[in-house]
Amino acid sequence: MTSALDLQGIVVPIVTPVQRSGAVDVTGLKRLVAYTLNAGVHGIWVLGATGDFSGLTDFERDSAIEAVVEAVAGRVPVLAGCIEQSPARCVERARRAEVLGADAVFATTPGFAPVSQAEVLTHFRMLKAATSLPVVAYNAQYATQTPLPIATIRTLAKEGTLAGLKDSADFGDFRQLVVALSDLEDFPIVTGIQFLADCALLMGARGCIPPLGNVVPQWFVEVYDSAKRGDWSHAAEVQNRIAAFNVVVREWAPGASVFGAFFGMAMVALNLLGVLDEAVVVDPYPAPTASQAAIVREHLHSFGLLPRLETAGRLAASRA
Amino acid sequence: MTSALDLQGIVVPIVTPVQRSGAVDVTGLKRLVAYTLNAGVHGIWVLGATGDFSGLTDFERDSAIEAVVEAVAGRVPVLAGCIEQSPARCVERARRAEVLGADAVFATTPGFAPVSQAEVLTHFRMLKAATSLPVVAYNAQYATQTPLPIATIRTLAKEGTLAGLKDSADFGDFRQLVVALSDLEDFPIVTGIQFLADCALLMGARGCIPPLGNVVPQWFVEVYDSAKRGDWSHAAEVQNRIAAFNVVVREWAPGASVFGAFFGMAMVALNLLGVLDEAVVVDPYPAPTASQAAIVREHLHSFGLLPRLETAGRLAASRA
Amino acid sequence: MTSALDLQGIVVPIVTPVQRSGAVDVTGLKRLVAYTLNAGVHGIWVLGATGDFSGLTDFERDSAIEAVVEAVAGRVPVLAGCIEQSPARCVERARRAEVLGADAVFATTPGFAPVSQAEVLTHFRMLKAATSLPVVAYNAQYATQTPLPIATIRTLAKEGTLAGLKDSADFGDFRQLVVALSDLEDFPIVTGIQFLADCALLMGARGCIPPLGNVVPQWFVEVYDSAKRGDWSHAAEVQNRIAAFNVVVREWAPGASVFGAFFGMAMVALNLLGVLDEAVVVDPYPAPTASQAAIVREHLHSFGLLPRLETAGRLAASRA
Amino acid sequence: MTSALDLQGIVVPIVTPVQRSGAVDVTGLKRLVAYTLNAGVHGIWVLGATGDFSGLTDFERDSAIEAVVEAVAGRVPVLAGCIEQSPARCVERARRAEVLGADAVFATTPGFAPVSQAEVLTHFRMLKAATSLPVVAYNAQYATQTPLPIATIRTLAKEGTLAGLKDSADFGDFRQLVVALSDLEDFPIVTGIQFLADCALLMGARGCIPPLGNVVPQWFVEVYDSAKRGDWSHAAEVQNRIAAFNVVVREWAPGASVFGAFFGMAMVALNLLGVLDEAVVVDPYPAPTASQAAIVREHLHSFGLLPRLETAGRLAASRA
Repeated sequence: MTSALDLQGIVVPIVTPVQRSGAVDVTGLKRLVAYTLNAGVHGIWVLGATGDFSGLTDFERDSAIEAVVEAVAGRVPVLAGCIEQSPARCVERARRAEVLGADAVFATTPGFAPVSQAEVLTHFRMLKAATSLPVVAYNAQYATQTPLPIATIRTLAKEGTLAGLKDSADFGDFRQLVVALSDLEDFPIVTGIQFLADCALLMGARGCIPPLGNVVPQWFVEVYDSAKRGDWSHAAEVQNRIAAFNVVVREWAPGASVFGAFFGMAMVALNLLGVLDEAVVVDPYPAPTASQAAIVREHLHSFGLLPRLETAGRLAASRA
Repeated sequence: MTSALDLQGIVVPIVTPVQRSGAVDVTGLKRLVAYTLNAGVHGIWVLGATGDFSGLTDFERDSAIEAVVEAVAGRVPVLAGCIEQSPARCVERARRAEVLGADAVFATTPGFAPVSQAEVLTHFRMLKAATSLPVVAYNAQYATQTPLPIATIRTLAKEGTLAGLKDSADFGDFRQLVVALSDLEDFPIVTGIQFLADCALLMGARGCIPPLGNVVPQWFVEVYDSAKRGDWSHAAEVQNRIAAFNVVVREWAPGASVFGAFFGMAMVALNLLGVLDEAVVVDPYPAPTASQAAIVREHLHSFGLLPRLETAGRLAASRA
Repeated sequence: MTSALDLQGIVVPIVTPVQRSGAVDVTGLKRLVAYTLNAGVHGIWVLGATGDFSGLTDFERDSAIEAVVEAVAGRVPVLAGCIEQSPARCVERARRAEVLGADAVFATTPGFAPVSQAEVLTHFRMLKAATSLPVVAYNAQYATQTPLPIATIRTLAKEGTLAGLKDSADFGDFRQLVVALSDLEDFPIVTGIQFLADCALLMGARGCIPPLGNVVPQWFVEVYDSAKRGDWSHAAEVQNRIAAFNVVVREWAPGASVFGAFFGMAMVALNLLGVLDEAVVVDPYPAPTASQAAIVREHLHSFGLLPRLETAGRLAASRA
Repeated sequence: MTSALDLQGIVVPIVTPVQRSGAVDVTGLKRLVAYTLNAGVHGIWVLGATGDFSGLTDFERDSAIEAVVEAVAGRVPVLAGCIEQSPARCVERARRAEVLGADAVFATTPGFAPVSQAEVLTHFRMLKAATSLPVVAYNAQYATQTPLPIATIRTLAKEGTLAGLKDSADFGDFRQLVVALSDLEDFPIVTGIQFLADCALLMGARGCIPPLGNVVPQWFVEVYDSAKRGDWSHAAEVQNRIAAFNVVVREWAPGASVFGAFFGMAMVALNLLGVLDEAVVVDPYPAPTASQAAIVREHLHSFGLLPRLETAGRLAASRA
């Protein structure tokens, strides 16, 4: 691929629905892709943290990429995750992604424990050398504990190793990053902070990769379209609505982890919205009980996302 | 004070210039206040982290408040810091601030080590009980390590303990904070993240407290005015310029701490801009050498803030 | 002072009892000093984190040093804290300590936010220059966030700035520290980790500064004496008892902060043991209710520290 | 398996030597196992962080277990790592370990990002349900960011899910852990802090899993044997020697990460000691240059581990 990477707009970090057996729910995943594409999103990010890559075996990871590539059918770019803690394993995953038809791959910094910047450079260079696909770096310092500073990104971008960046690190540094790297041609930077898509676009970033884009893709597209036509007030208004909507993630299950709380909400919501036939949550994350699922349903109602006459029968989530 | 706290717009967290003896440079501080007010800023935040409150004795802290109150002469609100690790010491400082004519006081969470939320509540309630001034909470979790979550702020705001909030915690959570507390009347929230004033205003926050507002107050006022008239693109453009300008802070002294690097740059810049007679840096932070000061001077030139014909003679910073 | 600092054995980081007015309970403090000296401790560490230095005004800090110096009457060294976030304030406190008759001063690294190692060097050098007392560094990285690595300590020790070190950082690094600095003559290193006094002594450290030494000084002296005569098994047995005893700190008040939970337990225990007339807890920390105080009493009973026939009347703690 | 897990003494977290192709150096690995068993170690821990599990593909992980099981030939227990971020993947690895003849499996807490304690419970329960081997928890909070507190361990131990614990978290809490769980029968706790094996044994822990046990297993056995016969002074002396020896890890490559610096040193040392034919370092970690390798050689000399007449020819490390 010689042309620049097409990474912009609203790229959905697609969740990976599974069946009770633990196998990927291919039908559900394809329906979810269609649901988000119909809303106008500009790309699919598969096997990221939101895709719970770490909850899937290698076989199921392949299934997920395959299903997404088929469902997308070339309409938008598909970026496939090869998040692993070493170059060797990352390369293995990248090769599978290439075979399965992804348009690009993404990876975090390596290491079980934090690593040095020289080690980060080696990691991405090895990944680049092993695949013909564009490589996108994903700064997930909240999980990896290794920073990905401007100097490292610049080096890797200028030499052609990296084709783009998703940054989910401290947003207080994001503008300095975007401004410092604005001289790089064809190096898209997007944010992973879903509450700040408008802000990121305002300062010159190319887009956003929002987990809630699985549930309310239309709202994020509305943010993006408003921003593109210069209606920042409306973009912000919709972003504020998204922030208000997110309260349900904390409310349905106060004791769950951040990811656990999101997964449960998302699966129940997608089930209620008719996108998924079942709301299956992958271990070790908690599956909402019927009364917890009712909180999610009420919330969807209150934001006008569901009509009031929902049957209670399908509410309880099950466990993979 | 029965009316709501007037905390909005660009509020400068004023640096505290000192003489070589370590005494507050009262003349310089007053000139700095005038410099920022002339640029149109909407308030002065004295004895914050940017004011290096911890580098000043209690006597010098009093001098700083006194000088600011005099120089401001009622034109904008003066908010005085009483950042201490316990209610008892905080109350002591608040009483001084009140006597010295400040319009409000601000404090962080208490504790040498992290404290519980119940302990945070006690702290702010004791502070409120001890002063007739409005109390503003300053979430400086980067330093205190104690979070100041939405629930705590809501409790303290609703009961009348807190009159406003400055938040410098993770900006990824800021929108949820602003949206969640938008039902509180007369409870201004401002950001301490100086690279995101436009973003904060866009989502409904009232303003920003930017350290660089000491050096380039006019740019922040330009951001604010642009935002107020709905010209978000221009606001963002100026914010991007501010982010680009900030590079000098990292460049002149790569080995200094974040605050140390800022103080050296700010004092040299204010000296070069004619605001301060000397560029004195308070220990333990490094004073720029002549060649380091030249980096700052070049940077000011390149941003059009200084004419080219600067004499080299006054460049070296001295040490308190 | 040309002789080496006498920092060894069990040095009690003395808590600072206060009256309901907030004034130091001088009588109680002197009785507490006597209680620990009678148990055989080898030094008093006043105005440390355990002494809640941050909860006391400067005036009360002076009172605390004065009372301790008087009560000790030269029998063991008194080390006085001047924990402040800047050299200027630290120097101010050190001068008071010197006037009040302390034998040495101690300080942490400076800064409201983390600082660089060059800034750490400046801080301790200024402190040293301002006092004729030996200066001890206290590595409290859990609170200051600034590391105090071997290289910095070596520099400061070799040049005569530091006379000793208390280390409360990660104990996994402590042995490397002790071994690496074992070539320094007359440079005592002690640990602040109260559950590992035996371990620290075993590897060659000089002693321990244990908060629980306020309540059970005799146990720590037993650890020390056992270690000195080579009876490591007994030393460990007593240390295990201390670890078991500490459970009460977590049990009486699960919601309090680490320091808050300790203060409440310590004040109630010292009151029950007859050392203090009242169990006053300084804000913002919670004062145990009568039923919480009863948990502490039961615990003291179960460890044989109190006879069973305690009146319930004095149990509730009060608040400064 | 109804009998209790045999986890005690010095258990070597075996490094995984590889060939330049990246394939496991089976011959080298078996020779390394023999080298450590000859020194008297009491168990082998394969595919831990020190075994760089994350640098190996699943195929190579199988090879490593297979080689270790063969080389050990039942003389000591072999504990095999199944460190993965989800139960599903962890179970997959545990099943392989069982097939390949390991005596027990170990796992960390799950999650790409931190998880809740309920999620931790689910994780270990699923792992237990999927294998007939004893399950050991490895508290590697430095990497996983999820704590493994006493209450969770107690629950899992009492219900029979966990058969033992390796703890590499803050050693300041270790004694409280050991004492609090001392009522559990047949629940061995070992430390992963290699500088504190003597301390851990002194307080009642069963043993230590020291990375340097790959290079100097005889020293750790000496610590253990001294401790067992009550000669704590000698145990500590040898531990101090180990701490002194470790300096080389920081010295040969100041810029490498903690693990990277260890791997390079270990491979070069094992090559010089004649255990490995080549010193191959797995990416992304740096391979020592000839002059860096010479630092390691000099260090081995100075500790009497190598005769002086070493040829320089084999010094440079190569890269997988």
